[in-house]
Amino acid sequence: MNATNTTELMNTLGSQAKAASALMARANAATKLKALRGLAALLRANVAPLQLENAKDLERARAAGLAEPMVDRLKLTPQVIETCAQGCEQLAAMPDIIGEISGLKQMPSGIRVGQMRVPIGVFGMIYESRPNVTIEAASLSIKSGNAAILRGGSEAIDSNRALAALVQQALAEAGLPLEAVQLVPTTDRAAVGQLITMPQYVDVIIPRGGKGLIERISAEAKVPVIKHLDGNCHTYVDDPCDVAMAVKVADNAKTQKYSPCNATESLLVARSVAAEFLPQIGAIYAAKGVEMRCCPEARTVLSKVAGAQLKDATEQDWSEEYLAPVISVKVVGGLDEAIAHINHYSSHHTEAIITRDHMHAQRFLREVDSSSVMVNASTRFADGFEYGLGAEIGISTDKFHARGPVGVEGLTSLKYVVLGEGETRG
Amino acid sequence: MNATNTTELMNTLGSQAKAASALMARANAATKLKALRGLAALLRANVAPLQLENAKDLERARAAGLAEPMVDRLKLTPQVIETCAQGCEQLAAMPDIIGEISGLKQMPSGIRVGQMRVPIGVFGMIYESRPNVTIEAASLSIKSGNAAILRGGSEAIDSNRALAALVQQALAEAGLPLEAVQLVPTTDRAAVGQLITMPQYVDVIIPRGGKGLIERISAEAKVPVIKHLDGNCHTYVDDPCDVAMAVKVADNAKTQKYSPCNATESLLVARSVAAEFLPQIGAIYAAKGVEMRCCPEARTVLSKVAGAQLKDATEQDWSEEYLAPVISVKVVGGLDEAIAHINHYSSHHTEAIITRDHMHAQRFLREVDSSSVMVNASTRFADGFEYGLGAEIGISTDKFHARGPVGVEGLTSLKYVVLGEGETRG
Repeated sequence: MNATNTTELMNTLGSQAKAASALMARANAATKLKALRGLAALLRANVAPLQLENAKDLERARAAGLAEPMVDRLKLTPQVIETCAQGCEQLAAMPDIIGEISGLKQMPSGIRVGQMRVPIGVFGMIYESRPNVTIEAASLSIKSGNAAILRGGSEAIDSNRALAALVQQALAEAGLPLEAVQLVPTTDRAAVGQLITMPQYVDVIIPRGGKGLIERISAEAKVPVIKHLDGNCHTYVDDPCDVAMAVKVADNAKTQKYSPCNATESLLVARSVAAEFLPQIGAIYAAKGVEMRCCPEARTVLSKVAGAQLKDATEQDWSEEYLAPVISVKVVGGLDEAIAHINHYSSHHTEAIITRDHMHAQRFLREVDSSSVMVNASTRFADGFEYGLGAEIGISTDKFHARGPVGVEGLTSLKYVVLGEGETRG
Repeated sequence: MNATNTTELMNTLGSQAKAASALMARANAATKLKALRGLAALLRANVAPLQLENAKDLERARAAGLAEPMVDRLKLTPQVIETCAQGCEQLAAMPDIIGEISGLKQMPSGIRVGQMRVPIGVFGMIYESRPNVTIEAASLSIKSGNAAILRGGSEAIDSNRALAALVQQALAEAGLPLEAVQLVPTTDRAAVGQLITMPQYVDVIIPRGGKGLIERISAEAKVPVIKHLDGNCHTYVDDPCDVAMAVKVADNAKTQKYSPCNATESLLVARSVAAEFLPQIGAIYAAKGVEMRCCPEARTVLSKVAGAQLKDATEQDWSEEYLAPVISVKVVGGLDEAIAHINHYSSHHTEAIITRDHMHAQRFLREVDSSSVMVNASTRFADGFEYGLGAEIGISTDKFHARGPVGVEGLTSLKYVVLGEGETRG
């Protein structure tokens, strides 16, 4: 596909999405619910055909020599498809927030002023590998009354086409416009450049993928981007704290799963509890094969732990998102130093304090400048499902518009409504 | 000032603002209140010195041959200064929303999840002429716990410097950092280019001025921009409606003041009430010297009105923001055509329907895609004071982050807070 054709194609997708978004914005809750339930049924009825299409992607990936963990991420197993179907049903069951009016108050002039929740319009989603993101994005788009243009990775194009066809069938059967969810049908890379520079059609871009992809898109986009950069999350063990709780939480935050963005990458410990706490967590990390990159003080304490894999932390380690069985460990003077360290090195994703001190907890919550701040809980909780959002299209590390896990509400906007009885301005 | 010096200057202002923003974010309500009340007192105590500085700007403006209405906008009269002081006191009296936690709910895992309102960080404000904007921006910045970098117009530089000095004195006397509000001390235009491309220091840019200025800034900025483009506002007179109310509101919406962005620029009338309504409003507009640019049908009806200044509307008229005693008038088939016309031609600022039909009112509120939608009220009500926001830093015609009048809340963001008792993820 040459450049002119890509431009034409993207303009067509854009203007169709814009037209569909007006119809989606006024679709009633029952219609959207029907589309979501219909999509769940279609997914369950099409496991075999979906796997046939998915096999083409898998074959291409293996032929290209992709590593098996990467091939795994591409797989549409019956379990993955069932999870997608359940996700659609869960979204369907949630209350519809479009049209909700909040804060309606009467002003001295007599007018009543409130805010109504409305869809943003059209969002463009750019993502890699996992084809189930196609269903997550499509279902959130339908529930939130937006239109979406989806650009999945070229490695999953056959799976994504098959899934998007089911989405459009569900939309049509519910009486909604097909163009409310469109997959970019080409793997031409120029299509991404077009998608992020059409402010006349696209209201916001949501990239999901590596930091490089997101930085490139943010730099080149001519529309707002909901950015999820890296997750260099901290757990700070304060004094006083319940040391047994601190050990349990710091273990879970690091080792329950190594790859998620909300896993703890850096452990800070108040000097006065280091001698008690560090040997206990160090023994667990040692047993689980977690390498510890330490400040000199932490290394001294941890050197007594049998089997501990210790290294000296470099300056770079304090900023690192490992996504691996590695953690940086630093002894700090107390709360002030912990907050200062976090606000300097963190990626502003998620940070937790383990403490018994109420004032420390309050200060940590207020002063740590991250999208999620936690007291006595594992950083691994930072996601849309655990926060009760029903689904999540990404986690924003920005402060503008949406911050933290982004669900249906993050894809909406508030407009002012004014109800009067003929008031005029004096 | 040469380019290197401007770059250095702006980097200094930026890093100072960033450092100050951390202190402002944790300033308590009483301290901010003290700064705002102190500023009000300083403004009242310095009317004469402020007018001396202001006289320099006025003299320069007159020497440059500025038209008298433009010179008027520059004037710091005792009345303007008193209004600024009262604005500071009103903001001081409002509840402090920073640190407020909303929606705290317990999740099945046991963690409690809510959202805390926090400042955005640093905003850059770019504005023209009226020096009182310096006080409005400074006071909103203090109340919202942000730091601000203010870039006023070169024509008001002496007034702005004098006002900013009082702001910094009030901050210092309250124990807050001086650098929480900084005025760009140079009139070098390169400073604006720097201000809008420092994402490491500045979180959002708020331009206030002509459409050209805002479009230029939006195109070149490397940080989010809260945009206020034009206000092509509509009033739609529906059938059925209270015609006397429609006449009163359409009169007020157009003629109470011609220059504000929330004045109605286009009047739509349902065909079935046109013969009754148009001659009445036409007579009022004729008496007030408002030129009517009409569709053929409206012109036929209005041609019977004595003294009416009528013209045929061109296609361009439907998109025009006149800010003058001119209005476009169109007869439409009914609600559907009115909504379609508005969504096509409007600048998405403010639109009103005059109706007695409940279903029509509901559809207008839901389907009109503008930052403020009104039933039976004058579009002139669309501003922060009338909406009870206490003050307004601008009106956003965007859908992202803040939409409509932007007050303290629009300068804040929500972060997630998680309160646990040692919960871990399973």
